[in-house]
Amino acid sequence: MLLPKFVRMVEVGPRDGLQNEKSMVPTAVKVELVDRLSDAGLSVVEAASFVSPKWVPQMGDSAEVLAGIARKPGVRYAALTPNLKGLEGALAAKADEVAVFGAASESFSRKNINCSIAESLDRFSPVMEQAKAAGVPVRGYVSCVLGCPYEGEIAPRAVADVAERLFAMGCYEISLGDTIGTGTPTKAQAMIAAVAERVPVEKIAVHFHDTYGQALANILAALQMGVAVVDSSVAGLGGCPYAKGASGNVASEDVLYMLNGLGIETGVDLDKLIAAGAFIGDAIGRPTASKVARARGCA
Amino acid sequence: MLLPKFVRMVEVGPRDGLQNEKSMVPTAVKVELVDRLSDAGLSVVEAASFVSPKWVPQMGDSAEVLAGIARKPGVRYAALTPNLKGLEGALAAKADEVAVFGAASESFSRKNINCSIAESLDRFSPVMEQAKAAGVPVRGYVSCVLGCPYEGEIAPRAVADVAERLFAMGCYEISLGDTIGTGTPTKAQAMIAAVAERVPVEKIAVHFHDTYGQALANILAALQMGVAVVDSSVAGLGGCPYAKGASGNVASEDVLYMLNGLGIETGVDLDKLIAAGAFIGDAIGRPTASKVARARGCA
Repeated sequence: MLLPKFVRMVEVGPRDGLQNEKSMVPTAVKVELVDRLSDAGLSVVEAASFVSPKWVPQMGDSAEVLAGIARKPGVRYAALTPNLKGLEGALAAKADEVAVFGAASESFSRKNINCSIAESLDRFSPVMEQAKAAGVPVRGYVSCVLGCPYEGEIAPRAVADVAERLFAMGCYEISLGDTIGTGTPTKAQAMIAAVAERVPVEKIAVHFHDTYGQALANILAALQMGVAVVDSSVAGLGGCPYAKGASGNVASEDVLYMLNGLGIETGVDLDKLIAAGAFIGDAIGRPTASKVARARGCA
Repeated sequence: MLLPKFVRMVEVGPRDGLQNEKSMVPTAVKVELVDRLSDAGLSVVEAASFVSPKWVPQMGDSAEVLAGIARKPGVRYAALTPNLKGLEGALAAKADEVAVFGAASESFSRKNINCSIAESLDRFSPVMEQAKAAGVPVRGYVSCVLGCPYEGEIAPRAVADVAERLFAMGCYEISLGDTIGTGTPTKAQAMIAAVAERVPVEKIAVHFHDTYGQALANILAALQMGVAVVDSSVAGLGGCPYAKGASGNVASEDVLYMLNGLGIETGVDLDKLIAAGAFIGDAIGRPTASKVARARGCA
């Protein structure tokens, strides 16, 4: 099995995970979580989202979070920036990188942000320009790459179209998100192959949700395609919005356990990562979704 | 990715799963579970264990279960037979096949059955002989193939030794069990490769536990080695004995979802399998460990 020697883990728990929490998580807790994650060796931590607090109140303290953390040299603290106002906030708060996003499904785009995929990407042009002027790298997320709640399966070509466009706009990396978690390994490989015809594979990241339990198998399949950047969320933060106990983001601990077993370097310490997951779980009163963390607890 | 076109799923929930339940599961419930599983299209259902009820009281009604089920043509109803007395019970109850077992770890063998691996296999000789005389096929289980609670990692060669011995004794198939669930994909492949040097790969089955969330990734890696028989447990029956919520056997629903996505034929109906899992979960008051079942419930 041909696998990369090193995988960069992108930790999305403090943003993509916590944004779904209904009760407000104190700023100090977010700050400690981010600091624990950087201390565990993660080199990219998505820590903030500069979106209107009207829509995502949980992220309303993003500037305070970025102001409160102990910035570790070599670590990039990232922020989601849905528009120019968001970018300005992120730059003022000294985010090291920002992120924009597009869906691979027209229906999802229209239902969620009320415009076509093309329109949604057009709107990011000024964000891209200003980020470039400020010297801040931009990551591009593509959602619904293996399935859409409205359209069902998504054609690999549709994913490649959006990925290519984001890359052409200047995104340094494209993260392919299986938003509803319905993907399986060979379908993931076919989708990645289609994207890799337009975007160099070393610029591709994968972002799998474990809703159907397929995330690690899909990550393994992606690694076999040469993908070497994997998004994950400590303790699996970011539950399914539809049901208690159903999971969303794949747990970072479980990804790291597999990568360790595969002999792939990451620079991340599993014990510290598990401790960070235990910390946030205790703080928000939510049991971990990481099986590795649970197994360690039961040993 | 080279994969088998057909995978035989071996359902172990009614035996390997339920035997760990503390409250007695009524015989009628077991019978209905087995019937629902055969109706879902599973061709092998491990339904009984002829072990002393002193040790495993939950399996004390195995003869009644095998007498009560509606036997479906083409389905094999299997029973675990730890000794000659067990075999006699299984034959009297008309089990279609029986199973014997050995550990790949000396320490595990000594601590669990108080004898060496070699001695434990010697003791099965009369079982093998009498089963052969009765024309009943025998399956061989090897436990601790990727890790042992006492010894840690297990050498692939130790697994190959036991597998070879069971095969030479007459077992028609060798099921390799990652009893503590610590295995990861490339280690699983190395172990399977070692076994495949002594036992034809088409006689190898895999039996992964999902304690560390690695089961589906490991199964994917095994399929890539040509393994085409996979053990699993409906609803993930058979929890970790150490902690609530920690999982043991990989859930059949999640395995089937992946196989379906991979385009691999199984003959098993996912909706009926999920319904069987919901039935037993309701009956024993245990939430399903299948993510697919949970995701379907939340859609």
